[in-house]
Amino acid sequence: MITRTGRYTLLFDQHPMAAGFAAVVGKKEGEGPLARQFDKIFEDTKLGQETWEKAESAMQEQAVHLALDKASISPQQVDYVLAGDLINQCTSSIFGLRSLDIPFLGLFGACSTMALSLGLAGLLVESGAAGTCAAVTSSHFCTAERQFRFPLEYGGQRPPTSQWTATASGCAVITPSTNGGGPQIAGVTFGRMVDMGIKDANNMGAAMAGAASATIVDFLNDTGKKPEDFDMILTGDLGQVGSDLMQQLLSRENVELGTHYADCGLLIYDRQTQDVHAGGSGCGCSAAVVCSYIMNLLKTGGMKNVLFVGTGALMSPMTVQQGESIPGIAHAVWLKSAY
Amino acid sequence: MITRTGRYTLLFDQHPMAAGFAAVVGKKEGEGPLARQFDKIFEDTKLGQETWEKAESAMQEQAVHLALDKASISPQQVDYVLAGDLINQCTSSIFGLRSLDIPFLGLFGACSTMALSLGLAGLLVESGAAGTCAAVTSSHFCTAERQFRFPLEYGGQRPPTSQWTATASGCAVITPSTNGGGPQIAGVTFGRMVDMGIKDANNMGAAMAGAASATIVDFLNDTGKKPEDFDMILTGDLGQVGSDLMQQLLSRENVELGTHYADCGLLIYDRQTQDVHAGGSGCGCSAAVVCSYIMNLLKTGGMKNVLFVGTGALMSPMTVQQGESIPGIAHAVWLKSAY
Repeated sequence: MITRTGRYTLLFDQHPMAAGFAAVVGKKEGEGPLARQFDKIFEDTKLGQETWEKAESAMQEQAVHLALDKASISPQQVDYVLAGDLINQCTSSIFGLRSLDIPFLGLFGACSTMALSLGLAGLLVESGAAGTCAAVTSSHFCTAERQFRFPLEYGGQRPPTSQWTATASGCAVITPSTNGGGPQIAGVTFGRMVDMGIKDANNMGAAMAGAASATIVDFLNDTGKKPEDFDMILTGDLGQVGSDLMQQLLSRENVELGTHYADCGLLIYDRQTQDVHAGGSGCGCSAAVVCSYIMNLLKTGGMKNVLFVGTGALMSPMTVQQGESIPGIAHAVWLKSAY
Repeated sequence: MITRTGRYTLLFDQHPMAAGFAAVVGKKEGEGPLARQFDKIFEDTKLGQETWEKAESAMQEQAVHLALDKASISPQQVDYVLAGDLINQCTSSIFGLRSLDIPFLGLFGACSTMALSLGLAGLLVESGAAGTCAAVTSSHFCTAERQFRFPLEYGGQRPPTSQWTATASGCAVITPSTNGGGPQIAGVTFGRMVDMGIKDANNMGAAMAGAASATIVDFLNDTGKKPEDFDMILTGDLGQVGSDLMQQLLSRENVELGTHYADCGLLIYDRQTQDVHAGGSGCGCSAAVVCSYIMNLLKTGGMKNVLFVGTGALMSPMTVQQGESIPGIAHAVWLKSAY
């Protein structure tokens, strides 16, 4: 049963679970601190495809098949696949998933998409609308850079506030929790758009910090939980600039995350050695971190409670050119261990 | 309660209803056969804004406010707004809805988005996850043309198969049906992607026909219903080329829609006098037709049962340039009169 608690939060009594999950990443992510967590590392970030976009699609397809295999579930058994990505008209999801023949719910949440798809998949299973859902998303450094910023060949300089779009995809296959001991979804807070007035497309962390802060405060208020009730409150992906800013905003609300705080964009790369400036970003960044490292720890009981707060910067090159600011959005998913 | 019936269809026992609905359109749509059905016709299709994109956003915002006003519901009472559009990164929805401060579920279904948002809104209310949802989408001839095809100033010729993107927005406010007699949502079939191998971005009707046919067959098989059980089976938007093709495909499955069939893209314009070639299209086309003409008839009991099948062509200029075909998708929503 789904129970609304407070103004914004849904609790799932049955705790739908990730029966399978998988993360695939590119070369650079495979050289980072989480290398051993990932299911597959592609040394060739074009995956043998003609274009980066086709490579990103192929990555997403592989993540779905790996997650399904690990859950011993066939595509024919999946009721819905929930997916989206950063590329115009959700190109990577559409062309990655079209061969699956699974009803397709297309989503858009920019870099918050993994939390949106995971939360909705949990809701669909909890409500009985679905027996099995696949939640998936992806990003690719080369597809995102040329679409949102400059052609790669131009070699544009990145300012210190900029984040590095992860070449990665993550998928979780959500089923009722009666079937086993996978990581569970205990609740979700879908977020509102928060516009901080940031107009710098190279400072997305700052653009998203307000939304992340608002959603965390909403979740804590609604549930009566405290940060120390969680092993980890995990944003994805604010990077260093956005993380610092969000914690300042939370302090004003008397919320201190302290050592319980982490950010997917800071976990996936080593900022000292990997030249990623403020950290990682892209739908695939949090998708790959959650569908490997985080879910691995939840599955074994190494962590009991994680609040995953996916954050998105809602912009396109056109909106920036037209002088618009960049609204942020953040969706929170409460992940729980079965143990 | 949500009941899965057959492989693909969900039935809603409580029949969530549209407590309010509204459609706003541009000048050309206001000169068409449905002119008297619309809540507002903008003679200035820029709505006094600096850009077409800002105008489309403003149109979407107005549709939401009008639908809420008609339902006597304030934005603060809405649990979720479900929205998407054709513009890169869902620009029109984001900037049209950011000031509402309502949790935002971003969707992508190309021109099928109204059916996707309506179906999901019904599901959220039926499941108890939400008390009130707003489902909204929009399109604008000028934003779509310059993004998907050519700059308007270029004056590119349109082939006979091309469709005219409607300048329009529609919104429905979905609540539990205990509150009154509005049009009800009795069920939904979320569709699979179907790729007919069409590569011509000026023939979207053909690209979507296979998906529309598949979803209609799925719905009829799952529910045991026949076309004659519906006052109208309404696609949105196949235009003349796609409608003809879809009916040929359905004939092969021994499904004849006959006089029960209509298409939003053929209802919104007069093809003889309005120079729209194969008919209308765009997220806003079916949104505006359903959230005015169709829901008006359902509200008064002028029609009892309508199967609204939103259809989308999943493409971007880049995917076409990269030689990809255009997969189609179709989501079916069973709309019912309370009388």
